[in-house]
Amino acid sequence: MAYKIATIVGSLREESYNRRIARTVCAIRGDNLDCSMVEIGDLPLYNQDYDSLPQQPEQYVRFRDQIRAADGILFCTAEYNRGLPGVLKNAIDVGSRPYGQSVWDQKPAAIISGSIGAIGGFGANHQLRQSCVFLNMPVMLQPEAYIGNLSDDDFDAQGLLKDGSTREFVEKIAHAFHDWVDMIHRSRSLLAKDAAHEKAAEKQPQPA
Amino acid sequence: MAYKIATIVGSLREESYNRRIARTVCAIRGDNLDCSMVEIGDLPLYNQDYDSLPQQPEQYVRFRDQIRAADGILFCTAEYNRGLPGVLKNAIDVGSRPYGQSVWDQKPAAIISGSIGAIGGFGANHQLRQSCVFLNMPVMLQPEAYIGNLSDDDFDAQGLLKDGSTREFVEKIAHAFHDWVDMIHRSRSLLAKDAAHEKAAEKQPQPA
Amino acid sequence: MAYKIATIVGSLREESYNRRIARTVCAIRGDNLDCSMVEIGDLPLYNQDYDSLPQQPEQYVRFRDQIRAADGILFCTAEYNRGLPGVLKNAIDVGSRPYGQSVWDQKPAAIISGSIGAIGGFGANHQLRQSCVFLNMPVMLQPEAYIGNLSDDDFDAQGLLKDGSTREFVEKIAHAFHDWVDMIHRSRSLLAKDAAHEKAAEKQPQPA
Amino acid sequence: MAYKIATIVGSLREESYNRRIARTVCAIRGDNLDCSMVEIGDLPLYNQDYDSLPQQPEQYVRFRDQIRAADGILFCTAEYNRGLPGVLKNAIDVGSRPYGQSVWDQKPAAIISGSIGAIGGFGANHQLRQSCVFLNMPVMLQPEAYIGNLSDDDFDAQGLLKDGSTREFVEKIAHAFHDWVDMIHRSRSLLAKDAAHEKAAEKQPQPA
Repeated sequence: MAYKIATIVGSLREESYNRRIARTVCAIRGDNLDCSMVEIGDLPLYNQDYDSLPQQPEQYVRFRDQIRAADGILFCTAEYNRGLPGVLKNAIDVGSRPYGQSVWDQKPAAIISGSIGAIGGFGANHQLRQSCVFLNMPVMLQPEAYIGNLSDDDFDAQGLLKDGSTREFVEKIAHAFHDWVDMIHRSRSLLAKDAAHEKAAEKQPQPA
Repeated sequence: MAYKIATIVGSLREESYNRRIARTVCAIRGDNLDCSMVEIGDLPLYNQDYDSLPQQPEQYVRFRDQIRAADGILFCTAEYNRGLPGVLKNAIDVGSRPYGQSVWDQKPAAIISGSIGAIGGFGANHQLRQSCVFLNMPVMLQPEAYIGNLSDDDFDAQGLLKDGSTREFVEKIAHAFHDWVDMIHRSRSLLAKDAAHEKAAEKQPQPA
Repeated sequence: MAYKIATIVGSLREESYNRRIARTVCAIRGDNLDCSMVEIGDLPLYNQDYDSLPQQPEQYVRFRDQIRAADGILFCTAEYNRGLPGVLKNAIDVGSRPYGQSVWDQKPAAIISGSIGAIGGFGANHQLRQSCVFLNMPVMLQPEAYIGNLSDDDFDAQGLLKDGSTREFVEKIAHAFHDWVDMIHRSRSLLAKDAAHEKAAEKQPQPA
Repeated sequence: MAYKIATIVGSLREESYNRRIARTVCAIRGDNLDCSMVEIGDLPLYNQDYDSLPQQPEQYVRFRDQIRAADGILFCTAEYNRGLPGVLKNAIDVGSRPYGQSVWDQKPAAIISGSIGAIGGFGANHQLRQSCVFLNMPVMLQPEAYIGNLSDDDFDAQGLLKDGSTREFVEKIAHAFHDWVDMIHRSRSLLAKDAAHEKAAEKQPQPA
């Protein structure tokens, strides 16, 4: 069975490396990860006054529906100025509101940060993790994915990572991400079954 | 002499508490801080592809000009999801580019974070500081300004902080911010004079 | 069944509030959490050269054994200088080495930060979370536990939290922490059973 | 004139790369930076109960005196578990207390983080910066110094960086650090002179 994955890229650049990494992850596990790229570039900047509007901005409605429908979230993000790009944080903010209606709640996620520099977006990666604690999103722990020194040479004509050490690392991440989403969904379902079973057992007439 | 201060509010809400705090800071030191509220709500989400356009988006041009003209920056920000609001980070990102043309460089700044919760936006405050290191902006150290538990009761009909402990704290911050901007500008100018003086002295004929 | 919990307090002060909070958590869920206070004040400062000693410092051996034996970890920590106390980070560092022999791996954990200030140790809390990603420790997401404004008045003569809003909050955390450890251990065991079952099924002769 | 610099290394390993980087910085600017390596490996783990002792631990007294005497601080630190090494944070904590007697106050500083990994200690670097805000220490902004991929090959038999790109980068940092300490001390002294001058001018009889 394939999990529905909402893929969110923290960079609007047409030729974004992070977009291509996201695409590669989904290609590697295409059998089990049914990915949709969720666009965030058209989301109006979040304004709390929108929360009380009778009608939410249509892009907000579209975005929140896409996240709500997903079994898991794959974030692939650039780092801007040692932090999370505003464009991605805005999407996080939009999805988290109105108060009490966050669409992020309980979604398993992975965070990949990719950059042309050596540091691989460490700052962006952990700023996003800080929000995910609040948003109640279990984010994959290992392997951490800071991918540095990216360049055009890493990608092929189809916009996927070429063979090489970066692709090998991304393959590990792709498998770990699938297993993470799978582990969380299967354990939730097994726990629910287990609870139902226990409840049924309680109702059984006990031997006298 | 008054310093030109660009005030940036990390919340678009009409009745934003942080906007009112910014206004209060400027009212308290109106003699020496000539503040303009710089709007960030109309800035298109930053896209790196814009950097190579022959014509930058007009809102970017306007925003960058306003920052460039300022002697110092006052950030007053909400916290969203334990982090910096996307809307404010987007403004940071816009001002930092195109590469090599950041308008933030060397601007002295202060960061006030205000929230209705107890924590006073600590997460947002330090995420912004992390970017300011990269942006080469000397941010005021003390007093740190995490202002929690804000409510409508803290403000008067003019949209300023009422007398009380929060206002007293903001008065301290306002004075410290003025002194910070003043210290940096005066020391830069004294250092420049000193260097010019030394250079002139070198050219003087030395006593035999 | 009770889970064995290693409780670690990030403050050596005799009358530490965080020690008393830890004790309260364990008292509340004494039926299901079998807590031992693990001392960290005698651990020599970590030095990587120890890794290659034939004999590890005896306090290291004792500490690592205690963590290794635990089903889960409860961190209750003060904040020093807006960050994690050195004494607690040192314990983290000791437990993580020698390379490849970390005792933290896969241990479910919760992080409570308590302080006399309003911010409730937010900085310490998230710095510890940043390490736990690397250490592969699933840390409880919700409720986050930043407990501010602590004073002697919050505690009774037995060194436990008195009735009141702080205790009510800590009761929620205690229950959530038990459920977190339980969820992780039970889902791991159900997943293992499920895998064994599938494997057995594969070996069955299929109907022709 | 040479500034007295207290050099603090966040790793106790005998052959610490960060120790060798610190030594290289001081060698490069030996004319103007009079460095002393301040040992932190013997500092007992900080315990707040010490604050009220009639006699502070002797290592604390020695350490605090050394910091107090310095014109600036050079931190060269490893990263442990994506964070600041406990041993260095402990030294920070020791120097910051007893309450109101912090020896760090107003000391200009630079933070270099070095590691064998690609990320160059970004996490440790910024966790230390977060504390320095509270401690009122102006930390050099640019260049940021995340030095990754360190190995024995980078160093010569004297324990200094060999010629190469890492050394070139460290030379930039060494000069920038000297200029940073110099700028802060000279601007403080010029501002003090300026203030004295203004005060004297006020006392002059004004022309009628």
